[in-house]
Amino acid sequence: MINKFPGPKRPPRPHRPPRGLKPGGGRSDGNEPKKKLPPLGEGDIRIIPLGGVEEIGKNMTAIEIGNDIVVIDIGLAFPTGDTPGVDYIIPDFTYVEENKAKVRGVIITHGHLDHTGGIPYVMSRIGNPPLYTRNLTSLFIKKRMDEFPHLPPLNMIVVENDSKIKLGEITARFFGVTHTIPDSFGVLIETPYGLIVNPGDYKLDLDKVDGKPTEEEEKRYSIFDKEQTLVLLADSTNIENPGFSVPERETLKNLEEIIKSVKTRLFIGTFASQLERMISIIGFAEKYGRKLVVEGRSMKTNVDVAIQAGMLKVKKDTIISAQEIDSYPDDKVVVLATGAQGEEFAALMRMATKNHKYLRFKKGDTVLLSSSIVPGNEITVQKLKDNIARQGAKIISYRTSEVYIHSSGHGNRGEIEWLHRKVKPKFFIPIHGSHHKLRQHEELAKEIGMPEKNIVVPDNGMVIEITDQGKKIAALKETVSSRLIMVDGLGTNDVKEVVIRDRQMLAQDGMFVIIAIVNVKTGKVVKSPDIISRGFVYLKESQDLLHHVRQMTKKKIEEATARMHPINFDYVKNLVRDEVGKYLLQKTNQRPIVLTVLIEV
Amino acid sequence: MINKFPGPKRPPRPHRPPRGLKPGGGRSDGNEPKKKLPPLGEGDIRIIPLGGVEEIGKNMTAIEIGNDIVVIDIGLAFPTGDTPGVDYIIPDFTYVEENKAKVRGVIITHGHLDHTGGIPYVMSRIGNPPLYTRNLTSLFIKKRMDEFPHLPPLNMIVVENDSKIKLGEITARFFGVTHTIPDSFGVLIETPYGLIVNPGDYKLDLDKVDGKPTEEEEKRYSIFDKEQTLVLLADSTNIENPGFSVPERETLKNLEEIIKSVKTRLFIGTFASQLERMISIIGFAEKYGRKLVVEGRSMKTNVDVAIQAGMLKVKKDTIISAQEIDSYPDDKVVVLATGAQGEEFAALMRMATKNHKYLRFKKGDTVLLSSSIVPGNEITVQKLKDNIARQGAKIISYRTSEVYIHSSGHGNRGEIEWLHRKVKPKFFIPIHGSHHKLRQHEELAKEIGMPEKNIVVPDNGMVIEITDQGKKIAALKETVSSRLIMVDGLGTNDVKEVVIRDRQMLAQDGMFVIIAIVNVKTGKVVKSPDIISRGFVYLKESQDLLHHVRQMTKKKIEEATARMHPINFDYVKNLVRDEVGKYLLQKTNQRPIVLTVLIEV
Repeated sequence: MINKFPGPKRPPRPHRPPRGLKPGGGRSDGNEPKKKLPPLGEGDIRIIPLGGVEEIGKNMTAIEIGNDIVVIDIGLAFPTGDTPGVDYIIPDFTYVEENKAKVRGVIITHGHLDHTGGIPYVMSRIGNPPLYTRNLTSLFIKKRMDEFPHLPPLNMIVVENDSKIKLGEITARFFGVTHTIPDSFGVLIETPYGLIVNPGDYKLDLDKVDGKPTEEEEKRYSIFDKEQTLVLLADSTNIENPGFSVPERETLKNLEEIIKSVKTRLFIGTFASQLERMISIIGFAEKYGRKLVVEGRSMKTNVDVAIQAGMLKVKKDTIISAQEIDSYPDDKVVVLATGAQGEEFAALMRMATKNHKYLRFKKGDTVLLSSSIVPGNEITVQKLKDNIARQGAKIISYRTSEVYIHSSGHGNRGEIEWLHRKVKPKFFIPIHGSHHKLRQHEELAKEIGMPEKNIVVPDNGMVIEITDQGKKIAALKETVSSRLIMVDGLGTNDVKEVVIRDRQMLAQDGMFVIIAIVNVKTGKVVKSPDIISRGFVYLKESQDLLHHVRQMTKKKIEEATARMHPINFDYVKNLVRDEVGKYLLQKTNQRPIVLTVLIEV
Repeated sequence: MINKFPGPKRPPRPHRPPRGLKPGGGRSDGNEPKKKLPPLGEGDIRIIPLGGVEEIGKNMTAIEIGNDIVVIDIGLAFPTGDTPGVDYIIPDFTYVEENKAKVRGVIITHGHLDHTGGIPYVMSRIGNPPLYTRNLTSLFIKKRMDEFPHLPPLNMIVVENDSKIKLGEITARFFGVTHTIPDSFGVLIETPYGLIVNPGDYKLDLDKVDGKPTEEEEKRYSIFDKEQTLVLLADSTNIENPGFSVPERETLKNLEEIIKSVKTRLFIGTFASQLERMISIIGFAEKYGRKLVVEGRSMKTNVDVAIQAGMLKVKKDTIISAQEIDSYPDDKVVVLATGAQGEEFAALMRMATKNHKYLRFKKGDTVLLSSSIVPGNEITVQKLKDNIARQGAKIISYRTSEVYIHSSGHGNRGEIEWLHRKVKPKFFIPIHGSHHKLRQHEELAKEIGMPEKNIVVPDNGMVIEITDQGKKIAALKETVSSRLIMVDGLGTNDVKEVVIRDRQMLAQDGMFVIIAIVNVKTGKVVKSPDIISRGFVYLKESQDLLHHVRQMTKKKIEEATARMHPINFDYVKNLVRDEVGKYLLQKTNQRPIVLTVLIEV
């Protein structure tokens, strides 16, 4: 057996400070508000990005004019490894909460979680203002709110692309945009100096690959031929991708061909949020006489919502249950499943690891992964593919497919440039992206002629003001609170950063607890101290180490208490903790969390 | 302040089993050896991949003929998130150790850690057999062994591409290959039925982008025009990339142009292992009159080794220290640094986060990341870019650059196909890659005409035999040990899987320790139990929860001990642990590691 290795002589590991908790590389300075904000000047406009500008996700922006605040989007972000055990991260909405008397409404641009996911945690805390959105989005929000039955109902108002609403003194309008989910729209806020424009998530509907915007798409944006734009807030997600994005119609054409022609069982993994694609795949299955199994909670939910919205019409016997799949020939079934990102408990991974109750891959199956890989998921996707390959199924993935089988919902650099040239804003604020993407978006704006002074590259919590009758844009030196708000477990508490730091340290080198019983009068240690440890070293093979720590603990306590009347137990506790920590570092080059418990008898 | 959230009503989280410990999605069955291997038949050949066929990294293969074993490569792999706190993973060399009397030699194909890194941990354990390799590789191995001064010296024998060596009855030869480090070679093992061929890591030296192999490169492989190959073991790393790889000369041409023309300070981040590129960059700096700062331990080490090997000749005043950088004009310096993968303590990240002792980025700097992103590092690279962008430096990265500024050392699919057609092996074993890559490589071999029965897709520890006078290849049902061997801390112990599982659980939900003092005679709890917890919930805001747990612990202990004489403390301990665990799950939907300590007085 292999137990002992010769140890390298090397410098001790650098002390590992807990990693920065801001996903996506936040500012190194603090993120508590600096000072009280000055009052908003008469006729001035305040734009406060509260989330989504130091990361992809948790989008939220507050716009304040006069005595009115409008909020656009309240999303969530998924944690990326630095925040173990955390379910979601939501925007810090402290500023909006503190000013809830001024909040006239919330506008949600579309039904994806990075724009809606924070709603249950935020709305009742900011006074439950009216929430404006389109029909499909409202159905998604309702479905999510069902999981929070103790919350007061939302006051949702369904609007159309051509609606005009009043939010206090503010007038807002909308315009339809192309995204991977229907009913996506952009927001136009009227000001005396021109429009505030936030298209939300968008791509251009091109007629073909490397083609040009369709006539209908051109029409949607024709508004900007007539009206002036004061400031554009625009998505930076795909700024690093050159050219134009692949039209969804191209992906759908290829998926149709595959569904039509593949002679084996066909498993399609995709994002449940790709609602348009999901609806089309179900239609293709029906068209070519294949039964369809829908697997995964979010996929089932989204099928329900699409049916409810009247966007999906499906014959009664097209969708079958997983148990029925063996009753049909292999070339007559399609399984549409969640988990193309290799998520541990999602349907595809459960099938691949043989943990799914009814479905297993078999030799000859075809598995199509109709998705790109979200940064951070490369390893889990690789594991998914390994496990699928091990069952003998053939994998068609985005990367190796000869035809497009996925297209992003966000425009590439070419589309972003098109938007700038169409909207011709006076000022520009890049949003939706981590800092270097916002900087690249800034470069693009400068390249096409915008002066640097007309651009503000924001951080979360930055207060941007447009002053001097719409002539000047600048960030205040004061900021509003922009802490990470982490939601975990039952979501009844936010998770404090200290808890996350402890988890990071525990994950690195584990923990080591020493329990000693000390006679209060004599200072003597009664019996040999107890030690418990997890995640540090393999205790069975470390008896010498443990023995020495016990001896050392007893000695240190008794030396310290010998000169002490009465005994300062806190002092002794910290002394033992520090000494044991040093000893363990020296012997193992590891830094477990060391805790001392002194029991006074 | 934001402390309390309304909780969603949702199903409890699924129990999270510790994630599978095999990086890259290992087999779900056990990996201890199945049974004793049958003896090797007269004239038969045994090939045992011990590492590198369920992952990228830790390459090691044993070849056994008659009474002799030859080992090719002994690498390491870096952990990928599933093994927190672990420094390296090395191949399970149990089989070789158990048969060390038969080991005639180890051949190392080139100087990269995924082919050399396991040497210090393995060589003395397998009887320190002769180690054959080329000069540069031997210098790298020596440098590494300096960190293990207590180990016996290696018996290294430097060979050339045209050397022929005897390893017991086995004859081995070599052939030079193109890779990112000089002195890379492939191995040819003679058998009566033809050659066993393992080219190691290779790409083709193309004359230009999308060009054809140079004359010299064609010559290196001309050996296969004359000799027959029994079995090919070949790299699958880049099987998913279509076409041919970008020639290094193209990358170097572009880097030269950038070094020549950029008018700002230029920081170049690259892998220290890209030795050829590193040498060229230093040459370009010298040529264009720029001073060069080398930052990062591995970069400095590799510069030293390259000078020692006579491969790098540099004038005395070209390389300056980081402190001297401000004495030169911005357009007269280049900083060559480690950390293009966003590694936390590497030079680039320390500069970007303002933790470097001497170097800071400033507005106008140019940072060139001459590397691709290793899967799993996307988030850290993004953070690096965010932090650099925040200092106002311009980033040129592989992804957004208009010219090639990085090329892989591994051949793409086109080169892999070229190799197969050139070598024309009878049998084929794909190596170097996770399972789905090996499967794709198998598909390629089948597409170009190899029968399925002539291919074995291996797992680590699989025993492949060529029998019947070289007519048949098959894997035995018996396997050899293929556990994960993790090296951590001082490397004096391997890390047991149980320790890693505990770290995973601690990282998710933390730990919760209850300490109660129990009177052995009465079974009564003396004083209120103590609780310590880390990484679970924020204790200051959870006083009710703690209070209830204390009460519950006292009650459960006293109820249980009331009926017990003598008290079964183990039983009571487990009872309390389970009850408290259930209670915490119910209240918080989290599963910390719960530990109970009962102190008998």
